[in-house]
Amino acid sequence: MNLLLLDPSALTGQHEAIVRGHGAKHLKTVLRIEPGDTVRIGRLNGPRGIGTVEAIGENSVTLRCVFEDTLPARPQIDLLLALPRPKVMKRLWAQAAALGVGRILLTNAARVERSYFDTHVIDPAFYTPLLIEGLQQARDTRVPEVSLHRRFKPLIEDELETLSDASLRLVAHPAAAQSAKSVLRDGTTERLLLAIGPEGGWVPFELELLAAHGFRAIHIGTRTLRSDTACIAALAAIHQFIAI
Amino acid sequence: MNLLLLDPSALTGQHEAIVRGHGAKHLKTVLRIEPGDTVRIGRLNGPRGIGTVEAIGENSVTLRCVFEDTLPARPQIDLLLALPRPKVMKRLWAQAAALGVGRILLTNAARVERSYFDTHVIDPAFYTPLLIEGLQQARDTRVPEVSLHRRFKPLIEDELETLSDASLRLVAHPAAAQSAKSVLRDGTTERLLLAIGPEGGWVPFELELLAAHGFRAIHIGTRTLRSDTACIAALAAIHQFIAI
Repeated sequence: MNLLLLDPSALTGQHEAIVRGHGAKHLKTVLRIEPGDTVRIGRLNGPRGIGTVEAIGENSVTLRCVFEDTLPARPQIDLLLALPRPKVMKRLWAQAAALGVGRILLTNAARVERSYFDTHVIDPAFYTPLLIEGLQQARDTRVPEVSLHRRFKPLIEDELETLSDASLRLVAHPAAAQSAKSVLRDGTTERLLLAIGPEGGWVPFELELLAAHGFRAIHIGTRTLRSDTACIAALAAIHQFIAI
Repeated sequence: MNLLLLDPSALTGQHEAIVRGHGAKHLKTVLRIEPGDTVRIGRLNGPRGIGTVEAIGENSVTLRCVFEDTLPARPQIDLLLALPRPKVMKRLWAQAAALGVGRILLTNAARVERSYFDTHVIDPAFYTPLLIEGLQQARDTRVPEVSLHRRFKPLIEDELETLSDASLRLVAHPAAAQSAKSVLRDGTTERLLLAIGPEGGWVPFELELLAAHGFRAIHIGTRTLRSDTACIAALAAIHQFIAI
């Protein structure tokens, strides 16, 4: 944990927070804080700041908080992800949040098994702590927005426009003719929407529908990767060419 | 599984393989092969090829094999990795093999806990199947060489020269002044040795020792990532600028 994200309920005053539960335990047993120590803090979807330890109770830590005036930059990439199998999705939440994504749109696709939509790993109660874990690792405060889409075609044809304000749409595809490098203007500040297919890949109909709605196909290498590895690799690859 | 790696013991003749165990089960229950079907195959550390199903037994599948004349290219990157905690290392084996690394040098460092060296996740019996899983995912045949180094200083000062033939040495460090892009000649065919630090980062002595032995510090973004995410992200980032 490189930053402690404070839940709104922890903020007891404008400049005071009382940390309980897992956060208090981490401060006491891992960081071994003493009164007067400072820790990096952040408000959920708010600014980062510095907390000074005022008091250490049996189950709580009281911090005096000073927050920055500005928010961390909103991540430049939104993710449109064909829902991977639960084991893979489970591993991806924290890592996607750590790498920084504005929004995660989880979609059905021909090669997504319907049963994947019935698992607890796409329940906010399950994934929110994992997103927060990833943000705390990467010192970010902005929780990615997550939405589920059981029908691919209406999502792409009708809903996408209002769900993501990204002006550049990309679809990662191992057989694409163009590389990320050849498509991205170096240092671009445009917001991007990146589509990543299911384990077995997109089917031709899906690739055509994506192309018809402005998605440009890029490859990030020649090797076929598991969904979670592919997501991390594609986000990292694209980050080499963009501003934030 | 996008390619079935054949164990030497499976190769019963120059053009025949008898697949048993997990491989046979995968062919029968996941790929649902029938006689006459073809599957992508590979010889461990050898060429790729095509196997034609000749016979399907209760616990075995017999393939007629044709192999390519050349080997897959050796991955261009070697990894020098400060041993992460076991849970993270466990997740990394298959993903590192899928992304492609020639060699994995696991090293001690000031911020590596000694107990990490006592875990079963660095036992070849544990990690070899995971490396093979990653290779089968990425259609590669070359198993990364793995070595363990309990002393950082002699490794860097004395042993590294003979362990890796990489001519370009890089160390990933979030505070580095230069990006991967600014250091790598676009499309370079040089072999690279990439050093990735422990969760808490390298200590100044280690960074100085690495610098004194030719490692150039690069960052691949401004966010602090978990070891496994950092490895995948750094490998993917560097792959954007190299040949293979």
